[in-house]
Amino acid sequence: MSQRSGGAPLGVWLIGARGAVATTTIVGAIAMKLGHAGRVGLVTETDAFRVSGLASLDDLVFGGHDLLDTPLVKAAHALGRDAGPLAPELVHAIEDELTEAEKHLKIAPPTAAARAPLQFVRAVQQDLDDFRRSTGARRVIAVNVATTEQPAAAELRDLDLDALDAALHAPGSRVPASALYAYAALDMGVPYVNFTPSVGASLPSLEELARVRGVPHAGRDGKTGETLLKSALAPMFRMRHLHVRTWVGFNVLGNADGLALSDPATAASKTESKGKVVPSILGYEPQTLVRIDYVPTLGDWKTAWDLIQFEGFLGTPMTLQFTWQGSDSALAAPLVLDLIRLVDLAASRGERGGLGHLAFFFKSPVSCEIHDLAEQYALLCRHINGS
Amino acid sequence: MSQRSGGAPLGVWLIGARGAVATTTIVGAIAMKLGHAGRVGLVTETDAFRVSGLASLDDLVFGGHDLLDTPLVKAAHALGRDAGPLAPELVHAIEDELTEAEKHLKIAPPTAAARAPLQFVRAVQQDLDDFRRSTGARRVIAVNVATTEQPAAAELRDLDLDALDAALHAPGSRVPASALYAYAALDMGVPYVNFTPSVGASLPSLEELARVRGVPHAGRDGKTGETLLKSALAPMFRMRHLHVRTWVGFNVLGNADGLALSDPATAASKTESKGKVVPSILGYEPQTLVRIDYVPTLGDWKTAWDLIQFEGFLGTPMTLQFTWQGSDSALAAPLVLDLIRLVDLAASRGERGGLGHLAFFFKSPVSCEIHDLAEQYALLCRHINGS
Amino acid sequence: MSQRSGGAPLGVWLIGARGAVATTTIVGAIAMKLGHAGRVGLVTETDAFRVSGLASLDDLVFGGHDLLDTPLVKAAHALGRDAGPLAPELVHAIEDELTEAEKHLKIAPPTAAARAPLQFVRAVQQDLDDFRRSTGARRVIAVNVATTEQPAAAELRDLDLDALDAALHAPGSRVPASALYAYAALDMGVPYVNFTPSVGASLPSLEELARVRGVPHAGRDGKTGETLLKSALAPMFRMRHLHVRTWVGFNVLGNADGLALSDPATAASKTESKGKVVPSILGYEPQTLVRIDYVPTLGDWKTAWDLIQFEGFLGTPMTLQFTWQGSDSALAAPLVLDLIRLVDLAASRGERGGLGHLAFFFKSPVSCEIHDLAEQYALLCRHINGS
Amino acid sequence: MSQRSGGAPLGVWLIGARGAVATTTIVGAIAMKLGHAGRVGLVTETDAFRVSGLASLDDLVFGGHDLLDTPLVKAAHALGRDAGPLAPELVHAIEDELTEAEKHLKIAPPTAAARAPLQFVRAVQQDLDDFRRSTGARRVIAVNVATTEQPAAAELRDLDLDALDAALHAPGSRVPASALYAYAALDMGVPYVNFTPSVGASLPSLEELARVRGVPHAGRDGKTGETLLKSALAPMFRMRHLHVRTWVGFNVLGNADGLALSDPATAASKTESKGKVVPSILGYEPQTLVRIDYVPTLGDWKTAWDLIQFEGFLGTPMTLQFTWQGSDSALAAPLVLDLIRLVDLAASRGERGGLGHLAFFFKSPVSCEIHDLAEQYALLCRHINGS
Repeated sequence: MSQRSGGAPLGVWLIGARGAVATTTIVGAIAMKLGHAGRVGLVTETDAFRVSGLASLDDLVFGGHDLLDTPLVKAAHALGRDAGPLAPELVHAIEDELTEAEKHLKIAPPTAAARAPLQFVRAVQQDLDDFRRSTGARRVIAVNVATTEQPAAAELRDLDLDALDAALHAPGSRVPASALYAYAALDMGVPYVNFTPSVGASLPSLEELARVRGVPHAGRDGKTGETLLKSALAPMFRMRHLHVRTWVGFNVLGNADGLALSDPATAASKTESKGKVVPSILGYEPQTLVRIDYVPTLGDWKTAWDLIQFEGFLGTPMTLQFTWQGSDSALAAPLVLDLIRLVDLAASRGERGGLGHLAFFFKSPVSCEIHDLAEQYALLCRHINGS
Repeated sequence: MSQRSGGAPLGVWLIGARGAVATTTIVGAIAMKLGHAGRVGLVTETDAFRVSGLASLDDLVFGGHDLLDTPLVKAAHALGRDAGPLAPELVHAIEDELTEAEKHLKIAPPTAAARAPLQFVRAVQQDLDDFRRSTGARRVIAVNVATTEQPAAAELRDLDLDALDAALHAPGSRVPASALYAYAALDMGVPYVNFTPSVGASLPSLEELARVRGVPHAGRDGKTGETLLKSALAPMFRMRHLHVRTWVGFNVLGNADGLALSDPATAASKTESKGKVVPSILGYEPQTLVRIDYVPTLGDWKTAWDLIQFEGFLGTPMTLQFTWQGSDSALAAPLVLDLIRLVDLAASRGERGGLGHLAFFFKSPVSCEIHDLAEQYALLCRHINGS
Repeated sequence: MSQRSGGAPLGVWLIGARGAVATTTIVGAIAMKLGHAGRVGLVTETDAFRVSGLASLDDLVFGGHDLLDTPLVKAAHALGRDAGPLAPELVHAIEDELTEAEKHLKIAPPTAAARAPLQFVRAVQQDLDDFRRSTGARRVIAVNVATTEQPAAAELRDLDLDALDAALHAPGSRVPASALYAYAALDMGVPYVNFTPSVGASLPSLEELARVRGVPHAGRDGKTGETLLKSALAPMFRMRHLHVRTWVGFNVLGNADGLALSDPATAASKTESKGKVVPSILGYEPQTLVRIDYVPTLGDWKTAWDLIQFEGFLGTPMTLQFTWQGSDSALAAPLVLDLIRLVDLAASRGERGGLGHLAFFFKSPVSCEIHDLAEQYALLCRHINGS
Repeated sequence: MSQRSGGAPLGVWLIGARGAVATTTIVGAIAMKLGHAGRVGLVTETDAFRVSGLASLDDLVFGGHDLLDTPLVKAAHALGRDAGPLAPELVHAIEDELTEAEKHLKIAPPTAAARAPLQFVRAVQQDLDDFRRSTGARRVIAVNVATTEQPAAAELRDLDLDALDAALHAPGSRVPASALYAYAALDMGVPYVNFTPSVGASLPSLEELARVRGVPHAGRDGKTGETLLKSALAPMFRMRHLHVRTWVGFNVLGNADGLALSDPATAASKTESKGKVVPSILGYEPQTLVRIDYVPTLGDWKTAWDLIQFEGFLGTPMTLQFTWQGSDSALAAPLVLDLIRLVDLAASRGERGGLGHLAFFFKSPVSCEIHDLAEQYALLCRHINGS
């Protein structure tokens, strides 16, 4: 692909930097750089993305925050088969590089209720700034790959930027950490990607901030498995005028994300995000149900079973079922790399605010109402290629 | 929808007029006319097809050929649950209309090897002409829904129209019945639709004939089930740069089509037609396999299981499986009705030769190399709406 | 089979007499008597059950209680395809007999908290006695096929018969209706079958009552679908020394039972009952999960998907998945008829208390710890044939 | 378990000694001996098999024939994930032991049509004798784990031992290699196990030889996957009087066995073996179909999909589907070890001829008509424990 390389690196600041997705992202970037891995799974490594201005994958430098201090080498080995996507041989081969990558990872600052949220924001900004300086990065992009939060209070959506600013000064304000991270990044001109269902930059006030500061952001909730399939299959029923009566989906997984989602309040973030896709594509509301269950023995291997009952000509009842068995992190990591490159490109082109053309990557896209995968892809290609 | 109605009817000549697809088509048209059934499954009854010039479904009149003389009422009851899509109550309610519909159905003329194929062609044309006259149809459209033939001899593709004409005069020439029917129809200005994998009008010589006579034709092999899903799902792997290593599909069904396909030579027509879709969409050749097996206890209910193994980021092996349980005839019949309307519209617009924009409906589309369902749909909508 | 017939009828008192299982049971008994249906699904109509003393299916007479007064004919038509197992033609053919069967169905007496539970018991006994007299039944058997209750208070298990008697005299005592029905039946010498997960006769105090009165009872929770499969498949893993790591099962259904189970408290009764089978058979606790979700569009058609991950030789991870699509009522009804006959036989043989040899029919068998289907079957056959 | 150990070893002569099953068996035995692997998958390592006289797994010594000379270490690495069951780390850890195990493996003697079959037999016996002498084995057991042959000529079953002896002297006689191996082993008092669908010792003449020589043999066709499930599930339908209408099974795999089975003539051996189980258990013939297809990308990972349609009460149609994803070799190898121990035990007990009590392990058991897994298990346990 036509890529800049050799100059100043592109900094990637991972929020949740020792989690499964972040670890797989870092391992993957190193493995590709050293020639241990190919480009499968990277959308930006296909012909449609031969555009000038796309950052080279070799120029990425990683930093980030995590609540834990598990060494990356250990985190990577924990994702070895059969619990995850990483071949033990691969992890062995890059242990030195993983240890080297540690040096920009820091413990996340505390979010004490007693302090004004702004203190947290400032601490994050300090670390972001240190990372930029110490790496000489030409740009830093922040990516939220942390564990899913509980849904944010609905009132938060009613605040404008001034009101949000005021809230940040008030101790006890309940602004979720993901929004504080988004604020911190956007406020200092750092583009922000929200790969999780957490609220992140999806608030009107943060869209306002992004526009004011002239920074782009992308999100929300990476579309990696069952929902990806929904967005590929639901249009078939619509195009063929087959009436979907029932679409129920059951997801089981055993990684940290699964553990967080075993809390019903947290799961609500995710199932809400997953539940809108089918009705939005079909244009009507079939009977739907989405469950995510934590089954620790599955590790990073997510299995989803979907049952779709539909009615054909003359009311004939028919059924489609599918089972998806995929590694959550191996599906997510290349999209994280894609998003870093595409958000960097958008920033270089002077785009600001929510990047609707990246809907292709998300379950709940910001600034875009399109859920049909083929339509999202066409939109993305048109946008990137300026046609 | 915006439709002509009330004037001269549109004649539909069904080749294989007492088979499951034809019976379901006739039952469906009657049921809709009498208000016993809705429009689910009809693509031309969706918003994208609100174009002027589309024939009313109430204006269809059916005729056709079959090798058997099973009464339609009996054929319809044989498709009652649990062997097929037709509710017994519905068939009971329209028995009189089905009997009335018998009057234009004739026994197919013989295809004796000792006679020149042209004699068969002339006999078909005589019946088509009688049908047009006796019904006062403003146009007749011939539709092949007969049992699949064995694959045609490869040499047939090398003949030009003159050579084909010569072959039709020679007793013993091995031109398949489906091609003779196509010849008969196109030669007298009757548009032709080939819903089967048989050769039909897909020969260069017949394309030439269609262009000379100024008649459109459409085909080949209605895309109703497993292949429909392939054409909706394979693009997802391509767009996401996931590498498909294996895509194997097993189909079991128990209707007459299944019986014909239990002959390996005949099955070759179908599996060839089904086998090209995935490699064509992906742009490379994964390990593929397509099987169709005759399991009489399943009746018209076709079940397909597909196993897709794909490789994601860092070589991670993942799997998608799906099971499709559908009524073959209930999936096919509304598409037959759609095709009648769309081919009629094309004829009215003066289009001639293979209608590539109807690829959306077929496994092996004539005059079109697109297999991606969403692309086919976009092409169809653009063409119909003249944009 | 060798059966008594022609004498006094065997009375069947259905608790939940207008529900899907009861309706299917009554429709089935009538259909078989009139020659409209065969014996498929009835265990007692196989060779292993050619024992003397088994009641004829033609000699059953039905009565019962329900909270609703939906006519049986209407209840039966509501179970017509595609919502349930009953062919519309069959229901039409026996409408008169269904109306006749209404005459012994009564509205269930109220279970007002302000009154002593004994008043409810007496009202039930009065109705049971009326039913016996008016039908001239040689014996009455009560069968609980009512909607599942919430789990009973744990303390209830600590009561002996005297303490239970005392509780029945105290207004406000929280003895579940299913236990009151069991008390009412056993106390007057009426054998009792509990086909539901509700507590029924499974309390130590009621076992005591059954033994004092010399009456048999059977239960609990008919094993009809997913759990049936578990009890057939789990022994395979045990016998072959394959280590099950994960066994998760997801059930979706749309009938009244599904609606009741959409209440988490009620579902607890069922999932507890379903959850014990696999660990009990395997002898260790794999990671398990059982979900039952209410999906109204499915009607009586229950679909279950189970995912079983197991470890083979050298730690090799392997997977079994199954999907079960069955009509809940069509699976339950013949077992209800089997149980009536087998409990009648036990009563005739003077057996009393919980009938452990009927474990074959239940998810949570009383008086038996065996869950392996083949072992349960062997036990049943040995017991019945006295060997 | 109660086992002899420390004395003379038990020799295991593998026919097909470098194939996937043999390699996994040798790797497994070494891995267990060195403490690298547990006992999961070994039936003889469960409580029911705590009998005296069972050989210790530590006392096995392996030899054998193969047509190829691929080093075991290479064969083992070729079975590493993702193509097979062997963890690369494990193979690395035992490379020395695998190389040591090479020394008793020889190239199989040729089976030239121009020579009398007896010459082949004598060559085999010479190698078996050398193996016994050089290892000091107290007993040698021959195990056929070679690639499946084409079905043997039907006439072969009509020969008695004298006629077979005569045939062995005639050049050009078409006695399959598997039968010649069985002859060679039994003739010299070596017990023989046939883990493949090839004819092996299943001929009447070889049963006669086994009885004359006083040697036991076991077979035929290890029951490892889809057929294992059939034998566990079909009894459920029989016990519950559910009428199976259709049972079709599709198997895909990519190892050498799959390649051999891609030849229709060879596949006939296997599908015949697999096809009898369900009708035999049910007692009637449902519509059945068994397919095995070679899909090289799957390696040793066999995937099977079965579709079972059955009729319940009142003719209600229901469906069960299952998908089995297992490593063929990891399923087979522990059973090979079990069979070695159990056949050794039988030989020690003076049993001779086909060992019907080992039907539990086979698709086409010799000397036993039982296919129901639970019944086979009960038979095995009774026999072993002498009760």
